[in-house]
Amino acid sequence: MRAEYINPFIASLKNTFRTMLGCEARRSDISLKPDGRATYSVSGVVGLSGKAVGTVVLSLSEQVALKAASTMLLTEATRINDDVLDAVGELTNMVAGGAKAQLEDLDLMASLPNVITGLNHEIHFPSNVTPICISFDTKWGKLTLEVGMAPVPQHAAV
Amino acid sequence: MRAEYINPFIASLKNTFRTMLGCEARRSDISLKPDGRATYSVSGVVGLSGKAVGTVVLSLSEQVALKAASTMLLTEATRINDDVLDAVGELTNMVAGGAKAQLEDLDLMASLPNVITGLNHEIHFPSNVTPICISFDTKWGKLTLEVGMAPVPQHAAV
Repeated sequence: MRAEYINPFIASLKNTFRTMLGCEARRSDISLKPDGRATYSVSGVVGLSGKAVGTVVLSLSEQVALKAASTMLLTEATRINDDVLDAVGELTNMVAGGAKAQLEDLDLMASLPNVITGLNHEIHFPSNVTPICISFDTKWGKLTLEVGMAPVPQHAAV
Repeated sequence: MRAEYINPFIASLKNTFRTMLGCEARRSDISLKPDGRATYSVSGVVGLSGKAVGTVVLSLSEQVALKAASTMLLTEATRINDDVLDAVGELTNMVAGGAKAQLEDLDLMASLPNVITGLNHEIHFPSNVTPICISFDTKWGKLTLEVGMAPVPQHAAV
């Protein structure tokens, strides 16, 4: 995955959190993900396809998911329910959407957002794809954004 | 989701298992998925986008995942490792690929295959999408295929 493709995702996450949630997200770390373990217990997943294929994973602690959803829903969410899961999916969709708008040359389309729960869930990428994992700090706690992309044979390398 | 869109996925799963694994998969049940719990502990996930957006989830018990991977890898797999996860992802990709070839009018493209593990993981769809869950019996055990699709605003209803 070419490094310049990661910046639109970082910018989109910061912008989505600022504009949708009134919440500054500060990048704290960036790494090649060493294994498949989701960093937190609620993960929004959006698939991308076009001149490249990829996956965007937004992983939140339960606390960050509840705070973000409460802000989006304009009502206090105190447990993970369908509304909170929809809000996390929508947030992931917005992060992916903002990034793909910046990556015009890849002609990306987003799939449905799915949300994975379960304390010890792991989201594995194909072993020939090395996802980049970016950690952020917010006033509500930490979160991670993980992006893995691969070229499709008939198009230019990603 | 229009009912006629599910048959290509059922046919593709049967065909993929027969041709790639030498394994007959018999459909045992079909239902609208009542909640987000993955039926089994290893789930391959592929996103679809085009004139519709969707997700395909192939959920296998550890035993079925190991038997399927052993057949694909031509070597006995005894535990879930990266090779087994890649095989499950590739199997999910083939099921999705076979179905999208039959759904030409939707111009679908597949994202990267991801594989989710964790005994109690749940894969949630957006609450306005009702996935269809199809159960299959094989000589190795049971598995489920789950497909959820939704129209995209600028195209015809799915």
